Amino acid sequence: MEVDHDGLEVLSRAECLRLLRTAVVGRLALTSGALPTVMPVNFTLRGNEVVFRTGRNAKLDAATDDAVVAFEADDIDHVTRTGWSVVVTGVAREITDPEVLSQDWVRRLPRWVPGGGSRVVAVSIDLVSGRRVVPRIPAMDGAR
Amino acid sequence: MEVDHDGLEVLSRAECLRLLRTAVVGRLALTSGALPTVMPVNFTLRGNEVVFRTGRNAKLDAATDDAVVAFEADDIDHVTRTGWSVVVTGVAREITDPEVLSQDWVRRLPRWVPGGGSRVVAVSIDLVSGRRVVPRIPAMDGAR
Repeated sequence: MEVDHDGLEVLSRAECLRLLRTAVVGRLALTSGALPTVMPVNFTLRGNEVVFRTGRNAKLDAATDDAVVAFEADDIDHVTRTGWSVVVTGVAREITDPEVLSQDWVRRLPRWVPGGGSRVVAVSIDLVSGRRVVPRIPAMDGAR
Repeated sequence: MEVDHDGLEVLSRAECLRLLRTAVVGRLALTSGALPTVMPVNFTLRGNEVVFRTGRNAKLDAATDDAVVAFEADDIDHVTRTGWSVVVTGVAREITDPEVLSQDWVRRLPRWVPGGGSRVVAVSIDLVSGRRVVPRIPAMDGAR
């Protein structure tokens, strides 16, 4: 098991993608008007892209303009202090092709508000990295 | 109730701060080596700052160098499609004053790995915004 210098397990790309498939909500980080911001999105993995539906808000204009964004999903249990976090870095683009938008898997992307989420955005999975916090027994500390 | 053009309830600063106090895990978004990234952190609210413990990884160097960062916390139920999300925008700084670091509330900030989390970072709450997804009855759509 590879660990980083903070003692977190470093996950392989394959494991990162497997974990992403188990998540429903992720957080998109992007720059909006020179300021960083984050928003939660419901997403799905499709080919080599993270795809989600968003509203028509101004923040997302940046994300649909071939901007480099980060997308993170995690599953963290703060009681046992275990969990994982995966970060994707890629380029965001709006899907506008009517043929793609009419496909079943796109129509199944959840809308959070009735009539909302009229935009569909895809983020290419160019880089992916992940970490897992594993419970360690004290004896292992000395063995490192 | 104020709603944005995506139909999400716009939360007041007071309500944002109240919700932040109910959360344990948040996500920090920052720029690392010209690329955006996101990492989950356990945090606490202290005065007008979000405070958390982090490891010595290179990504965080940016966050401890008076950089503008975004910090998001949320509580989302993807089954009922309800929940809230609050985003803080502020300047990150490392807390290095030994007197502050020895205070009880700092010592209680959780460490995820034994011996890890040796840095303590504070993000000023300069801007805060929040949204809540409220279940709406269809009749309300027409009334808007």
